[in-house]
Amino acid sequence: MNDYRYSDADIAAVRRAIEERRDVRHFRPDPLPAGLLERLIAAANLAPSVGYMQPWRFLHIQNRELRQRIHALVDVERAITAQALGERGADFLKLKVEGILDCTEVLVVALRDGRERHVFGRRTMPDMDLASVACAIQNMWLLARAEGIGIGWVSLYDPQELAALLGMPEGARPVAVLCIGHVREFLPRPMLEIEGWGQRRTMEDVLAVDRW
Amino acid sequence: MNDYRYSDADIAAVRRAIEERRDVRHFRPDPLPAGLLERLIAAANLAPSVGYMQPWRFLHIQNRELRQRIHALVDVERAITAQALGERGADFLKLKVEGILDCTEVLVVALRDGRERHVFGRRTMPDMDLASVACAIQNMWLLARAEGIGIGWVSLYDPQELAALLGMPEGARPVAVLCIGHVREFLPRPMLEIEGWGQRRTMEDVLAVDRW
Repeated sequence: MNDYRYSDADIAAVRRAIEERRDVRHFRPDPLPAGLLERLIAAANLAPSVGYMQPWRFLHIQNRELRQRIHALVDVERAITAQALGERGADFLKLKVEGILDCTEVLVVALRDGRERHVFGRRTMPDMDLASVACAIQNMWLLARAEGIGIGWVSLYDPQELAALLGMPEGARPVAVLCIGHVREFLPRPMLEIEGWGQRRTMEDVLAVDRW
Repeated sequence: MNDYRYSDADIAAVRRAIEERRDVRHFRPDPLPAGLLERLIAAANLAPSVGYMQPWRFLHIQNRELRQRIHALVDVERAITAQALGERGADFLKLKVEGILDCTEVLVVALRDGRERHVFGRRTMPDMDLASVACAIQNMWLLARAEGIGIGWVSLYDPQELAALLGMPEGARPVAVLCIGHVREFLPRPMLEIEGWGQRRTMEDVLAVDRW
């Protein structure tokens, strides 16, 4: 007996969002439903955070020229990444890795400045702040999927250049350029699996008992 | 019109899990439903990951003595953290920060070794692998909440000592000790808010337009 368990239908809805969420790069330009972006950010703000520091900030990119400049930064890093990948570089360049110019809304998610004041849970692992921001983004991602809206997380850019472009204070750091919008489709499996870039790990590969 | 949108009831279920998820430290010792732990790990394994690298591994701690040794590591770090917190140290020591010995199951979640081979999306920000693991944990956390099961993420330990205790290879790193089990209650608000340690950030604080 568990008083806190949701109905079977509600559990299935949560599981479905987890299973059907995709990292989306192909968008349609239609506007988002009214208030949806704010609901997604409110969901992010409910994420767990180390020592309750809530180290996140969201920049909604409304200026079109600014969006183009972000896209240009990503395009530079895409080319450098292709070179760094060596023999896989050609395969990488065939992949669509972002939808910054096509999606309806762009959000830049950042770690805030002043994080050094927070010690609880971070003394030996200061990057737990990044883990908290990632949990916040996953909240958005799952709620967006339920709403039928796609999100793509782009991490191809020089963080110092993006921080400068967006006027971030010293100590702040952009961790994600999120592309948000209506999708052309939600693929049945991750795009990088369909394209042959990688395969889903098996349970045998990810789960062990007691020792590595 | 959006063909991919879930029903209002299913959207509400996802939102409810996001709103009602808590970082749990107070557990009841009853066993988990059969298969639940595996379902949670399967949900984690469906998380997004940078360049589809899936950099996670889960150690299910079944040996009781090993659990006690993990608890001992956490207890040492708890004392050091209290000192490092200075004038807030006394308040910190009043908080219950983990339920390692009380919960039903302990999972240690780790970054795998060999991550340096993955460049896609990580050339300028190698710690995107940690962000991926955090998304995996958030998947588990939300599904567990729907199932009426609590999870607490403990990050108070020396990662090198914990890695050695669990026989992790060089390059692997433990990022979370997860306490999993039936709860005494799901608090209406985060415990650290109720205890006065921190306050929920407002939308005005977390959302900006175009520039910081």
